[in-house]
Amino acid sequence: MTPEFKYRKHKFDEGEPLSPWREKIHEVIFEADTFAGKTFDVALIITIFLSVLAVMLDSVQVISVQYGSMLFAAEWAFTILFTIEYILRLISVRKPMLYAKSFYGVVDLLSILPTYLTLIIVDAKYFLVIRILRVLRIFRIFKLANYMGEASMMMNALRNSRAKISVFLYTVLMSVVVFGSLVYVIEGPENGFSSIPKSVYWAIVTLTTVGYGDISPQTPVGQFLASCIMILGYGLIAVPTGIYSAEITREAMKKKDVTNNACPSCAYEGHDKDAEFCKKCGAKL
Amino acid sequence: MTPEFKYRKHKFDEGEPLSPWREKIHEVIFEADTFAGKTFDVALIITIFLSVLAVMLDSVQVISVQYGSMLFAAEWAFTILFTIEYILRLISVRKPMLYAKSFYGVVDLLSILPTYLTLIIVDAKYFLVIRILRVLRIFRIFKLANYMGEASMMMNALRNSRAKISVFLYTVLMSVVVFGSLVYVIEGPENGFSSIPKSVYWAIVTLTTVGYGDISPQTPVGQFLASCIMILGYGLIAVPTGIYSAEITREAMKKKDVTNNACPSCAYEGHDKDAEFCKKCGAKL
Amino acid sequence: MTPEFKYRKHKFDEGEPLSPWREKIHEVIFEADTFAGKTFDVALIITIFLSVLAVMLDSVQVISVQYGSMLFAAEWAFTILFTIEYILRLISVRKPMLYAKSFYGVVDLLSILPTYLTLIIVDAKYFLVIRILRVLRIFRIFKLANYMGEASMMMNALRNSRAKISVFLYTVLMSVVVFGSLVYVIEGPENGFSSIPKSVYWAIVTLTTVGYGDISPQTPVGQFLASCIMILGYGLIAVPTGIYSAEITREAMKKKDVTNNACPSCAYEGHDKDAEFCKKCGAKL
Amino acid sequence: MTPEFKYRKHKFDEGEPLSPWREKIHEVIFEADTFAGKTFDVALIITIFLSVLAVMLDSVQVISVQYGSMLFAAEWAFTILFTIEYILRLISVRKPMLYAKSFYGVVDLLSILPTYLTLIIVDAKYFLVIRILRVLRIFRIFKLANYMGEASMMMNALRNSRAKISVFLYTVLMSVVVFGSLVYVIEGPENGFSSIPKSVYWAIVTLTTVGYGDISPQTPVGQFLASCIMILGYGLIAVPTGIYSAEITREAMKKKDVTNNACPSCAYEGHDKDAEFCKKCGAKL
Repeated sequence: MTPEFKYRKHKFDEGEPLSPWREKIHEVIFEADTFAGKTFDVALIITIFLSVLAVMLDSVQVISVQYGSMLFAAEWAFTILFTIEYILRLISVRKPMLYAKSFYGVVDLLSILPTYLTLIIVDAKYFLVIRILRVLRIFRIFKLANYMGEASMMMNALRNSRAKISVFLYTVLMSVVVFGSLVYVIEGPENGFSSIPKSVYWAIVTLTTVGYGDISPQTPVGQFLASCIMILGYGLIAVPTGIYSAEITREAMKKKDVTNNACPSCAYEGHDKDAEFCKKCGAKL
Repeated sequence: MTPEFKYRKHKFDEGEPLSPWREKIHEVIFEADTFAGKTFDVALIITIFLSVLAVMLDSVQVISVQYGSMLFAAEWAFTILFTIEYILRLISVRKPMLYAKSFYGVVDLLSILPTYLTLIIVDAKYFLVIRILRVLRIFRIFKLANYMGEASMMMNALRNSRAKISVFLYTVLMSVVVFGSLVYVIEGPENGFSSIPKSVYWAIVTLTTVGYGDISPQTPVGQFLASCIMILGYGLIAVPTGIYSAEITREAMKKKDVTNNACPSCAYEGHDKDAEFCKKCGAKL
Repeated sequence: MTPEFKYRKHKFDEGEPLSPWREKIHEVIFEADTFAGKTFDVALIITIFLSVLAVMLDSVQVISVQYGSMLFAAEWAFTILFTIEYILRLISVRKPMLYAKSFYGVVDLLSILPTYLTLIIVDAKYFLVIRILRVLRIFRIFKLANYMGEASMMMNALRNSRAKISVFLYTVLMSVVVFGSLVYVIEGPENGFSSIPKSVYWAIVTLTTVGYGDISPQTPVGQFLASCIMILGYGLIAVPTGIYSAEITREAMKKKDVTNNACPSCAYEGHDKDAEFCKKCGAKL
Repeated sequence: MTPEFKYRKHKFDEGEPLSPWREKIHEVIFEADTFAGKTFDVALIITIFLSVLAVMLDSVQVISVQYGSMLFAAEWAFTILFTIEYILRLISVRKPMLYAKSFYGVVDLLSILPTYLTLIIVDAKYFLVIRILRVLRIFRIFKLANYMGEASMMMNALRNSRAKISVFLYTVLMSVVVFGSLVYVIEGPENGFSSIPKSVYWAIVTLTTVGYGDISPQTPVGQFLASCIMILGYGLIAVPTGIYSAEITREAMKKKDVTNNACPSCAYEGHDKDAEFCKKCGAKL
């Protein structure tokens, strides 16, 4: 790659340079280094918490009946606030489409859309539950000092042990299918094991040591088989734990710092401390 | 061992050399290096998943009544496909008997046999459940790149900690026998603890922290004993986890690569990268 | 800071030097090096255990009816003993207010206050439960030889992995909110999932593998979702365990000794072996 | 210590030297190096398993009614066999009293006593359950090759982390007392939380993630508190696991071999490979 090509590429990636006031908005909304940026983050988290709480309380019959109009007003207040925030985010990045199609961009949109849709669709009770996804927005909390590095280290450890965890998960799934079918034959529909899928569900409930007790084996042979599944599940838990422990110990040794600033062009986060260009779109940081 | 003896041994082990078209079939079915091999593996996994799904859905009354004939047709389609595959496997290895008697050979046969038996035996409802063992065939998924080494490393760690895990398992089994008997004396048949085996079953349910709640202690002394078992079980989980963590950390340090090609003679898998001869039958790889 | 200032500061911090008999009381009550100190600690622990047992038994109807007056007498005996101890503690430290406002100072006061309040307030049944906080006083047991260093090492490991555990906890909380809302939509009030908060409660019961079974999914889709939550919870347990294992291994390498003597001025405990001045109030140890 | 004193001490400790035939019995019964010793061990384990099975089956009403006389005969056969074995053990050690008062000596006696007592005491149904302690005798299995070292390493790891585990256990116990009392106040007797001890029992069931569901919180506040206990319990499991993992990793590095021969004088087991004298009684090995 020639220097010239690189130069052109960066120019292309950076899009139009932001005007000073959009630069300022970007700093407040996307970054956490300045006082204004930190204050905005904390205020946002509190607002999100309150809006999620409102959605949850709205689903409780006694509260909904008594404080219905208050919750309705609060909901519209939150929606308008989040809409303004969404528009500001679109304005303050150089490539709005890249942000709009990113994970957080979609979550931000899903947080406000359902409320507006109630104006069109009449019976949207269950539809409104989508607003609960607002809770995902709080993951931005990890942008705040200290958490970024830890979270990315934990994710790295998970990513590195992905293959081992897949092997483990498949073994678990296969075991519950075989054990579930076996218990279906032994106990049969008369003891609540009415089909193989339901028996597999029971096997999962047992192997993971949850144990609802809504279905439980009644025959001695079924109880013996259940005992085997329980002890297997009790011992098997050692496998993912062992894998992850080994991985996180290794990760802990080579942990490196990550900044918590977003790219001014595409809003991608998680750049290394010594990075000078965005690793997603190549814009200058 | 003289070179001559080695030579003769290998000649004996390799059996008849495969003709080119059988060689080609072997490559597609048993190996995962070529494009055809990978495609075959993926197609097989999807087919197995669908056939297992069909067996599971068939056991659900409402589905079985409505879509019975469709599931019946699908079942025969899967069975014929798997039969062709089984025959091709027999043809393309140099020693068909060795394959037929191996673990996967038996599973492959059990996957097709029950359907044919329904032609002879009339009421074979529960018998058909054997087909669920098809799910075991998917373990071949680990032949696909990356998984082989991880899986064998996890198995090694389990094998190395076998002695420790036996000691742990025996301690658990002994504890549930002693605690189960004790609770049988304390609670007695009037509270659901009708016999020692049933009380031992309850002790397993409690120690492994499953806790169905189908039987639970009613007297204060019984509840105190149950509390002790729970805390024991809660703490004891640390033992297998500690053992396995230590082992997998050690394994991780000396992990070595394993190829995912099967022996052309006996279909044994899991050879080291530098292996030149099959470690099971001595045939040249 | 000039030496003079330091001198004055210490003089200020140390308050009035204790008279010999108060010095003696301090040694017995706050320290565990002498025979008298150890004896006092053991006697105190036994008394606390008995007093907690009395509070617990008092809540059992059948015992309360039969042995009510005995338990009433015991309660007053314990209260008077603890009151004397509390006064002695106040007398034998140089800065009584610092002790009174410390964690243990508050717990010590809460241990005796409720009983006196019953003389004023008539119906104080539930109020008396506060006395159960006496159990917290036993944490002073860790002052006894050997436990101090271990406990502080375990706390250090927790403190160092605080950021990682926060990330983990938030992920868990967010998962249960999303999954709870989802199951609320799928199962609905007719299957016991009457509101989002209740569904989130169910999701916590399931994810942590507790599994009461008071609410459990009835529809196939709900049971499938429940299976996913269970397997997630079963695997997720590996995360805090891995974090803490890695941390405690690191801690174990750099463990340093801590003395079990309290500061003669403010009663703060947990000073390093080589400490010459209290790190809380600057008094000479 | 002068050599002379050592000499006299050993002479005293070794007691009377065993005559050749008692020496031979000792070798067969207490050691596992010779063929006869191994055969005896395996035969003993099988006999113990069968006798425990007989005790368990005897408690099942339907089996007891039908095969009562057969089980009665088997029980006496086992008792007589174990009595002979017990006498042989007494004969073949130099200090019978030391063996009789050891842990295994007491277990061996408790395995045979109850059956003889049924000749004197008429209604000894529950008394017979003591025979289940025979299961403890199988711990001798660990004398068999390989297991000894592993078991002692696991025990060492437990012993070394004793202080940490005590701190952890006390924290757990204190938490359940405080949480149990709190839930007793919140939920009250009308929701099944009839007394503090019962509420503490519920808190243990919840914290250890057992979750019977026989008692479960009904009020929103109670369910919120329960959620906190569950998440605490879910995370707290990391503590003993972390402690034990760190310890077993350290143990694994310095593991040393232990022989599986018993001392000819006092039957103490677990001597180091290079030990020449018994570390319990000083007799020559």
